[in-house]
Amino acid sequence: MAAGSGTPTRPAPAGAALVAAVEGALVDFFDSRRELVAELGPVFIDAVAELQDFVLRGGKRTRPSFAWTGWVGAGGDPEGPQAPAVLRACAALELVQACALIHDDIIDSSRTRRGFPTVHVDFERRHRDREWTGDAAHFGISVGVLVGDLALAWADDMVAAAGLAPAARTRFAPVWAAMRTEVMGGQLLDIHGEAGADDSVEAALRINRYKTAAYTIERPLHLGAALADAGADLIAAYREFGTDIGIAFQLRDDLLGVFGDPEVTGKPSGDDLREGKRTVLVAEALRRADATAPAAANLLRTSLGTDLTPGEVTHLRTLITDLGAVDEVERRITDLTDRGLAALDTSSAAPEAKQRLRDMALAATRRVA
Amino acid sequence: MAAGSGTPTRPAPAGAALVAAVEGALVDFFDSRRELVAELGPVFIDAVAELQDFVLRGGKRTRPSFAWTGWVGAGGDPEGPQAPAVLRACAALELVQACALIHDDIIDSSRTRRGFPTVHVDFERRHRDREWTGDAAHFGISVGVLVGDLALAWADDMVAAAGLAPAARTRFAPVWAAMRTEVMGGQLLDIHGEAGADDSVEAALRINRYKTAAYTIERPLHLGAALADAGADLIAAYREFGTDIGIAFQLRDDLLGVFGDPEVTGKPSGDDLREGKRTVLVAEALRRADATAPAAANLLRTSLGTDLTPGEVTHLRTLITDLGAVDEVERRITDLTDRGLAALDTSSAAPEAKQRLRDMALAATRRVA
Repeated sequence: MAAGSGTPTRPAPAGAALVAAVEGALVDFFDSRRELVAELGPVFIDAVAELQDFVLRGGKRTRPSFAWTGWVGAGGDPEGPQAPAVLRACAALELVQACALIHDDIIDSSRTRRGFPTVHVDFERRHRDREWTGDAAHFGISVGVLVGDLALAWADDMVAAAGLAPAARTRFAPVWAAMRTEVMGGQLLDIHGEAGADDSVEAALRINRYKTAAYTIERPLHLGAALADAGADLIAAYREFGTDIGIAFQLRDDLLGVFGDPEVTGKPSGDDLREGKRTVLVAEALRRADATAPAAANLLRTSLGTDLTPGEVTHLRTLITDLGAVDEVERRITDLTDRGLAALDTSSAAPEAKQRLRDMALAATRRVA
Repeated sequence: MAAGSGTPTRPAPAGAALVAAVEGALVDFFDSRRELVAELGPVFIDAVAELQDFVLRGGKRTRPSFAWTGWVGAGGDPEGPQAPAVLRACAALELVQACALIHDDIIDSSRTRRGFPTVHVDFERRHRDREWTGDAAHFGISVGVLVGDLALAWADDMVAAAGLAPAARTRFAPVWAAMRTEVMGGQLLDIHGEAGADDSVEAALRINRYKTAAYTIERPLHLGAALADAGADLIAAYREFGTDIGIAFQLRDDLLGVFGDPEVTGKPSGDDLREGKRTVLVAEALRRADATAPAAANLLRTSLGTDLTPGEVTHLRTLITDLGAVDEVERRITDLTDRGLAALDTSSAAPEAKQRLRDMALAATRRVA
């Protein structure tokens, strides 16, 4: 991609090199905590090791990648003196994400993630193996809450210790604040939606907006732009692009959660139906069924969130497809992607970064896993 | 206290005026979030209102008071231009504390705090009252986890928005980082101690050191000193004083948890025995019983953490007293208080602040509730 861009500098890290740089920054941060952690003794050393394993075990480093690429696109110099500090601040997003995932897994009662036991389940197992006193499951949840808290506090510490110039730090702070509030707010809306069963398309879209779009793409890009002191026009374009692509990304995820190939997604087929997730896809199917097929609406409502057989999953898939909900969601994905890419294309972002953001957007919205 | 101190400035806020100033700063912070919160809609507005009520409902504002008084004692000018920013940064400690309490109440399965339902119990009740779907208790815990996370993130945001000078901010950051890590680490040690039943005096003292002493007095004073750019000698004296008084404060709390008057403490008599808390008091009783009275040791170990009758509580109290554990804990409190006050007395802290810190130390270690 760098070929022909005419830039005299070495290409900014991207793709695998960027992922490696982010992970390197995270390792350095954990190393910097070693002395403080050691003072608290072996129990705490173990808990921090679990957090470090969790953070470094994998993931696409999506948020730091968008933040870094947003910074480069807004004129940040990847060879300049501020680059290492910016990389560290971007990498800190992975610690916010660690908190979100560890606490989400408690909230969703998830037993595994990326093929490993979730943090609270792993500590539940330790409690059981060592025949400690008290309730093992409650112990696991308690440790998971605290390890997630630690990740969240450390995210801020990593930003504070990143070495940003004071003015950059000041521009960064309100965006960082908005992002953390939005993701927690989005999560709160999500669990209220599931509990209160507001199954409207609007409710599902609002959750997508805050829980995924703002947190995953819009605000990371905004953070990068703020660090580079971008103008209002570029920030507005990034945010339009980030919101649209972020929502499209979640809609693709919703489709994969119902129709994805388990061999590719790594999740059981139809998992979202068994969990009863109130996605836009399901909301759209319900809206259509309510209007034209009350019996189908009733079947959907009573089936979601139950322990469905493979045959029932197949039947619900057919129903959702026949109602036209899949086509409608695909149409939304196409419209959002087109609109997001148009905002990016007409923006003043640097050409190389623009091309990367375009590739990242297409990868996110067309992916099969 | 200000009388005769000879200082030309108006006395720094202390006591009730300081509490009011801290609460004012917290109200202002919540007000500053109103717009961002409103964007996320009514569910989030409700959750934030619950957090705000929780934070403003009461509490002694101990941590901000120590931080502020530490700053004044290290030469901070309560009439100077930095004072409002320092007050806001000190008040942010109450948001860390809100997270710690809300998550602790989940961990300890506490149903009430300060006479009100705990946050997770209140949301459990809402779920039940509205006849939502799913498990009400799990819903309550999920909301409690997220509301606590929000408080923790907002604590950092409040510091970031406090308006500290960049150099003060830089001095503040590593102390703030250490404090948050220590309190979460102390909590982790605590729940591991209860589960793994390490009932040694050393384990109980280590938990006190991090969960209470560092978090409640030592680090708040250190934060105040860092903001005032205090020298290494004064910081060392503050930390010695804070650690000693902090541990003594917790030892007093341990005694009150077993022997306190329910009319004064607001907790059922002997509550700590029923909860099976591994306090220094209990560890000391066990250590003595192991050496001289194995039957008493066995009775203690099998009784702690069970649903004791009032008669059993009375019997255990007599046992603990007769073993000499109460006298030993009182002796430790006296020694720690003497040592802490000596460190303060010989320090270079400003006389008026020194007197206030002395009063606060005595109130904390001699209190009856």
